[in-house]
Amino acid sequence: MGNTFGQLFRITTFGESHGAGIGVILDGCPPGLLLDAAEIQRELDRRRPGQSSISTPRKEADAVEILSGITRDGLTAGTPIAMIVRNTDQRSSAYDEMSVRFRPSHADYTYQAKYGLRIAEGGGRASARETIGRVAAGAVAKKILRVADGVTVTAWVESVADIRMPEGDAAPTEAEIEANEVRCPHPETAARMIERIKNARADGDSVGGVIKCRIQNVPAGLGEPVFDRLEADLAKAMLSLPASKGFEVGSGFAGTLMTGLAHNDEFENRDGRIRTSTNRSGGIQGGISNGEDIVFRVAFKPTATVMRAQRTVDKDGNECELTGKGRHDPCVVPRAAPIVEAMAALVLLDHRMRHAAQNQTFDFARQD
Amino acid sequence: MGNTFGQLFRITTFGESHGAGIGVILDGCPPGLLLDAAEIQRELDRRRPGQSSISTPRKEADAVEILSGITRDGLTAGTPIAMIVRNTDQRSSAYDEMSVRFRPSHADYTYQAKYGLRIAEGGGRASARETIGRVAAGAVAKKILRVADGVTVTAWVESVADIRMPEGDAAPTEAEIEANEVRCPHPETAARMIERIKNARADGDSVGGVIKCRIQNVPAGLGEPVFDRLEADLAKAMLSLPASKGFEVGSGFAGTLMTGLAHNDEFENRDGRIRTSTNRSGGIQGGISNGEDIVFRVAFKPTATVMRAQRTVDKDGNECELTGKGRHDPCVVPRAAPIVEAMAALVLLDHRMRHAAQNQTFDFARQD
Amino acid sequence: MGNTFGQLFRITTFGESHGAGIGVILDGCPPGLLLDAAEIQRELDRRRPGQSSISTPRKEADAVEILSGITRDGLTAGTPIAMIVRNTDQRSSAYDEMSVRFRPSHADYTYQAKYGLRIAEGGGRASARETIGRVAAGAVAKKILRVADGVTVTAWVESVADIRMPEGDAAPTEAEIEANEVRCPHPETAARMIERIKNARADGDSVGGVIKCRIQNVPAGLGEPVFDRLEADLAKAMLSLPASKGFEVGSGFAGTLMTGLAHNDEFENRDGRIRTSTNRSGGIQGGISNGEDIVFRVAFKPTATVMRAQRTVDKDGNECELTGKGRHDPCVVPRAAPIVEAMAALVLLDHRMRHAAQNQTFDFARQD
Amino acid sequence: MGNTFGQLFRITTFGESHGAGIGVILDGCPPGLLLDAAEIQRELDRRRPGQSSISTPRKEADAVEILSGITRDGLTAGTPIAMIVRNTDQRSSAYDEMSVRFRPSHADYTYQAKYGLRIAEGGGRASARETIGRVAAGAVAKKILRVADGVTVTAWVESVADIRMPEGDAAPTEAEIEANEVRCPHPETAARMIERIKNARADGDSVGGVIKCRIQNVPAGLGEPVFDRLEADLAKAMLSLPASKGFEVGSGFAGTLMTGLAHNDEFENRDGRIRTSTNRSGGIQGGISNGEDIVFRVAFKPTATVMRAQRTVDKDGNECELTGKGRHDPCVVPRAAPIVEAMAALVLLDHRMRHAAQNQTFDFARQD
Repeated sequence: MGNTFGQLFRITTFGESHGAGIGVILDGCPPGLLLDAAEIQRELDRRRPGQSSISTPRKEADAVEILSGITRDGLTAGTPIAMIVRNTDQRSSAYDEMSVRFRPSHADYTYQAKYGLRIAEGGGRASARETIGRVAAGAVAKKILRVADGVTVTAWVESVADIRMPEGDAAPTEAEIEANEVRCPHPETAARMIERIKNARADGDSVGGVIKCRIQNVPAGLGEPVFDRLEADLAKAMLSLPASKGFEVGSGFAGTLMTGLAHNDEFENRDGRIRTSTNRSGGIQGGISNGEDIVFRVAFKPTATVMRAQRTVDKDGNECELTGKGRHDPCVVPRAAPIVEAMAALVLLDHRMRHAAQNQTFDFARQD
Repeated sequence: MGNTFGQLFRITTFGESHGAGIGVILDGCPPGLLLDAAEIQRELDRRRPGQSSISTPRKEADAVEILSGITRDGLTAGTPIAMIVRNTDQRSSAYDEMSVRFRPSHADYTYQAKYGLRIAEGGGRASARETIGRVAAGAVAKKILRVADGVTVTAWVESVADIRMPEGDAAPTEAEIEANEVRCPHPETAARMIERIKNARADGDSVGGVIKCRIQNVPAGLGEPVFDRLEADLAKAMLSLPASKGFEVGSGFAGTLMTGLAHNDEFENRDGRIRTSTNRSGGIQGGISNGEDIVFRVAFKPTATVMRAQRTVDKDGNECELTGKGRHDPCVVPRAAPIVEAMAALVLLDHRMRHAAQNQTFDFARQD
Repeated sequence: MGNTFGQLFRITTFGESHGAGIGVILDGCPPGLLLDAAEIQRELDRRRPGQSSISTPRKEADAVEILSGITRDGLTAGTPIAMIVRNTDQRSSAYDEMSVRFRPSHADYTYQAKYGLRIAEGGGRASARETIGRVAAGAVAKKILRVADGVTVTAWVESVADIRMPEGDAAPTEAEIEANEVRCPHPETAARMIERIKNARADGDSVGGVIKCRIQNVPAGLGEPVFDRLEADLAKAMLSLPASKGFEVGSGFAGTLMTGLAHNDEFENRDGRIRTSTNRSGGIQGGISNGEDIVFRVAFKPTATVMRAQRTVDKDGNECELTGKGRHDPCVVPRAAPIVEAMAALVLLDHRMRHAAQNQTFDFARQD
Repeated sequence: MGNTFGQLFRITTFGESHGAGIGVILDGCPPGLLLDAAEIQRELDRRRPGQSSISTPRKEADAVEILSGITRDGLTAGTPIAMIVRNTDQRSSAYDEMSVRFRPSHADYTYQAKYGLRIAEGGGRASARETIGRVAAGAVAKKILRVADGVTVTAWVESVADIRMPEGDAAPTEAEIEANEVRCPHPETAARMIERIKNARADGDSVGGVIKCRIQNVPAGLGEPVFDRLEADLAKAMLSLPASKGFEVGSGFAGTLMTGLAHNDEFENRDGRIRTSTNRSGGIQGGISNGEDIVFRVAFKPTATVMRAQRTVDKDGNECELTGKGRHDPCVVPRAAPIVEAMAALVLLDHRMRHAAQNQTFDFARQD
């Protein structure tokens, strides 16, 4: 269960790291959007392993095939869009030991406890390859938001371990983010982050970090009161990502240190539009977007697989040691940036459709 | 939309601060549980305003009536349990100015932008009174978890502004938490917190803080891979609370500063059970509980209503000033603790039922 | 479980026949609709018992109270609308024997088997009083469809036992339907139906019948391919009604006797609009409305409670006899007509909102 | 939207008749079931075209590939099971004319009206090939019900046009049903049905019919009160099938002709179990199974594609003629039988899991 996300723009994903393939069905896509595999591929390539000197050497073409939902003219038909990526570069032997001994801070033990059995190769469904379906569907969501509404979703690496880029309000461009392999738009910081990641790898160790995401041009009014608040659905989306440990919107945890007078975002009339002079709310008030940029952060723990011996137990409960094998990123955050964007776009588009359904298509002018 | 929460143990809430009342329908409750209004009332009394010198003087009896779903013998019948609390102490006049001028960092403007109109009195649906339905249903969830599974859910105030209780692994008891009006189980810290809140009130200002929650005795195996990870649903539950700005599980944001070797929770065999020697995972790995205590934190911003003049705009876009009126807590976190418990219990019980449905009732022994 | 209906225009109901009351939360209602209790009451009065010489003498005022979701100006606010009807005229003693002995063709035994206990008085949740919440919410749906889209939903009694009104394409008006107590718009047939029902009552027996429903002015395009076909959701809505045993759309079961050539609805251009020259499809093709009237029928079995001795067993499995008591309609179909209308309106409005969300609010003109 | 079915045992389907392929993701499957492609294939072969002299000559291998969710040992892993069937025998040219002219009583016009464009080849998503995903997932559901609970689901052809097999209570075996190509277990009637279908084909015409389905060994207690009644979800499942026009459970429409005394199913104690002496309820009372066989019927209209000229309009609204081309069954009911079984199994298993979650895993013995 739990492999479906979204109410109206809804995705369902499948696939393990080492089976036939990974994929997604996207249901609820509006008709008439030009869409081809190359656009999806571009986003998949951003999350693909083997891109750079700081990520896993696993080489996957990760070539996407669109199976349905597109007309002869290359337009979305309104029907489900199924997309699949075949697995190719699998070295299951690397996982033989791991199939018996539980890797610390992985999902090996919990899957075994839940289901009584598991697909052990490559972490099975708990592999980060699972996010391929999210990124493929997110690419569609990002395009729709951009084409129909002018909304852009941008995520970048704010910190790696204790190396943090300077605070600032400027929204980095995609070019600035993609300019280096760590996806930090501040070049000097990026260089230090890369060095830190390489050092961790040299030590057989790993590091974590924080992604920051900014959504621009959001109309006011998206998000539902009470349970489906916009930040609640964003939080769920982000905490559903492998290795994520925290989420904060706007001022976040730091906001707890301020007083109300200092924290409140005063309203002003700027160029005829109601705006806030600060944005500690992170673009969301009472669960609903207020027209300012939506800004949030996601914390990712250090990669659990390390190339050093650690204590663990095997399936029979015997204590033993395990040394990580397989090919793993010593830091997941650079590749997590496009995944964060994908999930954010899925949440925003879904809420955009929900808002439209209730609030934008009824004309009660003639009632009496 | 968005007023329903949960898949199997599911609640739907209604009601505004100043209408006829607030309530909830709880669907999916297992039959045969002894339940009376007094038990619900006890939890409601914990979140009720007017309890102490540091909360709003608004006096509401908040007396709950159970409308359905209980047999003559006082047992849950398996059918929906509707519960209602009538509003009584309403002073709408305090809100007249607020109905025209948007309160900074409130939901006034966003509701207006979303719906084109709004119930302005008392913040309408965005009032913290909305959480009454959550607490009432959460009281049922807490009892079921305790009686059937021995699971306990406990939340307390870890920090108010920059005053933070000492770090520690000990799980405070309910008695220790309820021993003071700020619900911090460390008496010296509690005293300082109370003073800090009183100072804020005296200044016409407000403060925020952090709630920590611990769930004990959780069986391994709860939570669904991929989107409905246990921490993802907890994050959504917590970010759906008024004034919450952040969520972190286990090591959270601080975990991004550690390396993998230091962060990983090694497994060990303790008294014949597979356990971890540390708990930076916060009791959840790969989205699924591992049998350790579930531990998470929620950040709450300082109360938006302050008794000092702030700049804002009115409904026509004219810039103006607004000084807070009405009765509001200068700090929401003490009253938020029981609400955090309620939401956590709802999430956990729902996942417990989902897990049972898929994994605990099929016997495939006879297949060949 | 199972007490929620609809995806976007969504209702959740609660309440038993003999508890505190019956009610509904309506979530997803578009804002800005004028709505007062009197309008809801008008529809409730149509389903209310004690209206005529052929229905149960149980007298319930069934007075509705709106608890939330309405602004000072009487407009829907976009937030949940909770409505409650208190139970008043309860004579539980009539049910004492029934609480021990299972009434044939009632839900007594199945509730007991499912939950291990039950609220026996008045049939508990299985009472037809449960439909009050549906009718209250359906009244809102009917008004929205009428005011915003000009869509009307009309249901009437086509047959009682073997007495059937003449076939015909004319759509009866509400006045013609409400002109007699059996809600059959053909006066001569109505007179015979009433006599038939009175005879059944005199015999301590009961009769069933068929409701026909026609939805006019439906735009083409409503309904989703595959599982959520419009007729599928209508079928579910109708088979969810107490005592219903069958559903057919358009030609229905009789259509299986025709050949394709005779059955197909040929298209024509009528006054510049694409229309069909016949309507054996019942206004739906491939699960989607085609702009013709939606026409369907629902079969209701004879009332299970009869005032004659029947064989049954008690809770301990002992065979015994049971003679019906309590106040029951000898024929449910006249009162079922407004309930059928309510459910049809809920289905149609929900699909109207889903259609709008996906297909009517995106402008992809600028894509390249 | 609308391509997902089920709450806990949940399927999502995709694919058009003439695209890359058709498939399904099955989420919520219990772990530990032996499952291989051959078992799925066996059910797919029953619905496959080109099986007999009375079905379409379209030849599709319809070979299924399982993409995920199975362990090395051939057991279900609890994670999503994706299955795909590639399209192979496509003759799009047969559809050129049809892409411009709307086929009467098909979904061509309504898809165009809904989406503003459509995949015209082969009927696109409205093709009966869409049911492949249902049958593949239904094969899993049938196996689980059989292995874990001993429940069997059997559907057969009761009538073709006006040729109807004799009424009777005996439950035909699968062997009796599969003994002839029309899937009617009464050999003499089957012979007449086959002749009737061949005559229709010779005339370039088509016929419809009725499927009867019987589910045996159902435990009492499945189904939810109110909206998700077992018969309501069965009705939705059946009316979601292409060409279906009606559904009735137990006595159905004929039950409206009986009086209550004659219609009621009296209870008796048979061999220590509470049973009914008749089964006009069709195994369901108050929406919940009572332990008797579940019996229902589904009406299918005559195939819309006929090889004779019919009046229609083209996309520009011009009136014209259209003569059917392509390869189509002159009667869909023989191939519909396995599809009805698949949908019935999906509904039943989903309710079995929902029931278990709420009612079978909590022990409240220790409460006080």
